[in-house]
Amino acid sequence: MARRDRPVMPTTVSGFPEMLPAQRAVEASMIDALRATFELHGFAGVETRAVEPLEVLLAKGSIDHEVYVLQRLQAEVGGAGAAPEKGALALHYDLTVPFARYVVENAGALAFPFRRYQVQKVWRGERPQEGRYREFTQVDIDVVGSGTLAAHHDVEMTRVMAAALARLPLPPVTVAVNNRRLVEGFHRGLGADDAGVAAVLHAVDKLDKVGEDGPGGVRALLAAGAGYDETRSDATLALASITGDAAAVEAGVRALGVEHPLLDQGLAELLAVLRATHDVAAQTGGRVTVAADASIARGLDYYTGTVYETRMAGFEGIGSICSGGRYDSLASDGRTTYPGVGISLGLTRMLSALLAAGAVTASRAVPSAVLVAVQGEATRDASDAVAAALRGRGIPTEVSPDAARLGKQIRYADRRGIPFVWFPPADGTEAADPGGVQGVHEVKDIRSGDQAVADPATWAPPARDLHQRVSAAQRSDQRTDESGDQQ
Amino acid sequence: MARRDRPVMPTTVSGFPEMLPAQRAVEASMIDALRATFELHGFAGVETRAVEPLEVLLAKGSIDHEVYVLQRLQAEVGGAGAAPEKGALALHYDLTVPFARYVVENAGALAFPFRRYQVQKVWRGERPQEGRYREFTQVDIDVVGSGTLAAHHDVEMTRVMAAALARLPLPPVTVAVNNRRLVEGFHRGLGADDAGVAAVLHAVDKLDKVGEDGPGGVRALLAAGAGYDETRSDATLALASITGDAAAVEAGVRALGVEHPLLDQGLAELLAVLRATHDVAAQTGGRVTVAADASIARGLDYYTGTVYETRMAGFEGIGSICSGGRYDSLASDGRTTYPGVGISLGLTRMLSALLAAGAVTASRAVPSAVLVAVQGEATRDASDAVAAALRGRGIPTEVSPDAARLGKQIRYADRRGIPFVWFPPADGTEAADPGGVQGVHEVKDIRSGDQAVADPATWAPPARDLHQRVSAAQRSDQRTDESGDQQ
Repeated sequence: MARRDRPVMPTTVSGFPEMLPAQRAVEASMIDALRATFELHGFAGVETRAVEPLEVLLAKGSIDHEVYVLQRLQAEVGGAGAAPEKGALALHYDLTVPFARYVVENAGALAFPFRRYQVQKVWRGERPQEGRYREFTQVDIDVVGSGTLAAHHDVEMTRVMAAALARLPLPPVTVAVNNRRLVEGFHRGLGADDAGVAAVLHAVDKLDKVGEDGPGGVRALLAAGAGYDETRSDATLALASITGDAAAVEAGVRALGVEHPLLDQGLAELLAVLRATHDVAAQTGGRVTVAADASIARGLDYYTGTVYETRMAGFEGIGSICSGGRYDSLASDGRTTYPGVGISLGLTRMLSALLAAGAVTASRAVPSAVLVAVQGEATRDASDAVAAALRGRGIPTEVSPDAARLGKQIRYADRRGIPFVWFPPADGTEAADPGGVQGVHEVKDIRSGDQAVADPATWAPPARDLHQRVSAAQRSDQRTDESGDQQ
Repeated sequence: MARRDRPVMPTTVSGFPEMLPAQRAVEASMIDALRATFELHGFAGVETRAVEPLEVLLAKGSIDHEVYVLQRLQAEVGGAGAAPEKGALALHYDLTVPFARYVVENAGALAFPFRRYQVQKVWRGERPQEGRYREFTQVDIDVVGSGTLAAHHDVEMTRVMAAALARLPLPPVTVAVNNRRLVEGFHRGLGADDAGVAAVLHAVDKLDKVGEDGPGGVRALLAAGAGYDETRSDATLALASITGDAAAVEAGVRALGVEHPLLDQGLAELLAVLRATHDVAAQTGGRVTVAADASIARGLDYYTGTVYETRMAGFEGIGSICSGGRYDSLASDGRTTYPGVGISLGLTRMLSALLAAGAVTASRAVPSAVLVAVQGEATRDASDAVAAALRGRGIPTEVSPDAARLGKQIRYADRRGIPFVWFPPADGTEAADPGGVQGVHEVKDIRSGDQAVADPATWAPPARDLHQRVSAAQRSDQRTDESGDQQ
């Protein structure tokens, strides 16, 4: 489990976490990497408004989620009670409902299939004592079709999210895939009706909690809810135990001998996803693995085909960081149905666990690679000119706020993690040449103490020092003595 | 004024605008350019939670702003009436108040002077009939000190925002600068007391509306509020008419013959800003100009030194797009005072005007530079392999959703503005080499119709076609016949 001995994000208003600058740099860097991957795959960025009409949120079954209703402070008050007025606005609690509404509203201006990514905060009015976040950032990708959406988009989504996760500095991650049609077809093949299938999904979802046997166990639930005998319960548990790659899944399912057209379709879809992602683990050195897990039942009742859950090694306790699946009807305007397949990454949940464990760090708290020292307020122009020259070549640079002793200016840089301090000439050259950059300049790497003559027009820091770097830190319990490059 | 014959952003819930993907691409590109500039100057990115305790917002004089109070839908209702409970949370209406609170709360973990940028949505419960936005994006930069903050940071902020605006595809922009100390010192020199200074600021602020003369004119207001005679009113109006560069301001102010130490300090601060930014206009080909405007009075009552307003040529009707100034006390925790200087860019206001006028456009609606055609579903793997090869070299690529006639696949690309369509071999090579990229590939520029043999391992689009490009469009009323490269 995650260690909790590192600084967590300040959260003075319960459930509304805020990050210190170095933590926010980690988050921004992850969002940039995700965006870059999504755009490389042709996904367009979309933002929706933070609010939806309350009836839209409630119609989508948000009864599970506490929502925040907005009230204008100076609005006229409509008498006793506080039932929200008709047309009341509430903060969205996910990005799927707003996106579905956006698709219907703008269908005439969009080209289908439409791929979009969306990175936004969402809000849930959870009770504070539960320790859950009330404001957090979600990162969603979806592909939505008009009328139809081919099965190969399930393959595409899996590959895109795997590629995106592979670019993040995370512990090893497993994207587990299952398929509603496979599970439902299997149980149809065993003779279950609609109610039976629902009962089976419900029972299997409890497997971790209640176990197989005993009065409240899964076998008892299967018997009571679906009328399953021991043979069919055995088959159910055997199916739920299937994990692994395409070959393992195909052999495992076929060995159970159940036959149904829906099972065949679901199995084919699952195998297509697994085959198209079999090389992800090898390509990422095991950092991202896509594998089947036929025990996934959560979400099977509202998804219609592929479903996803994602676990992060060492952080299993936080649950799935990245979940989603296929909807036959993401949205509908009465005439046209919009099927979709999408995945949602819970960025705040993932990131806060990583930060709390010290499992990811930024190389410094500010973007600056260089602090230009000021030899005296009279020659601040000269320091500004050096900074302008460096920035002109893309080197993030700030100028010392005051002409203190150079030791103090170096400490200023050190406190921020700025690796280089630049010393313009102190000989008064600049006084005769205000704004100029002539004279002997020197630059010091304050980590090593190395100092050398440098030219503002040509010097550059090593590439690894140019920008804030975000990286998976060695966990403190895994740290070795030779980790000498950790500042 | 801006033309209104172009598509505006959809806004089905009044005051909550949403953007189509190509519009959002423009916004995201502007935010990326702003972030890059701020980080190049050493500004750290910060986000604050969307809510503040209501009493924090009200304590900061937000009585001018309608705020949205949050109410949990399933919260217990506290009887009749709807007065917000103590500890109620409300959505922030700007980024300054939350940042001030963040600074005090995290002072021990921040290094001062602390530079930050912040890009977030803010909310105001404006009445819908005013046509104002209730949700919009602000882009703020501030530098904040602990105890003190040197005057050269006013120079720095002006330069940073000018550099940031210069990177955006905007019509010509003028950052107008004034200084509270200059104006207050001038009127102290004329003999005004505290109440007189306040009355003068109030009167000059109305100059545009009420004019100089007549019963409700500025001269009458100056006489009534500050006891000014004709000579002092003449001087007031003469001061307010001063605009231009450092030389013009220095000569203009000194010619009025008023003397006061505060005037000297304010003038020196203003001249420092103007001198440090005199070359911005030349460097940007006149696209960004920094100039004094001593008539700026708005904000002088809460800022303490430098103040900013920014106008965009052709869009003067939307008012200042970018405003700010110096606070002697941005925040205080009782023991320490945190002075600051900052500027806030009203991104949504600026962008919605530009989009409505067709003054800025994205080169295409999706990130994809290439659509890889699919010759048949049996060879989709081959198309996927081409896409992977192109993406591996950073080329945004998508694969055709179906194996329709090639003409239909080309139209699919055309509708999205994707400039290139890639044709893998149709001869069945891939059937024998699934996932391979051998055989004769061709790529077509669907704008020109040019088609050529290409290698997935080496071909790249021209740099101008690699990513969505956002650019200032020629206004339709300025368009010339030879603008042939506009699709």
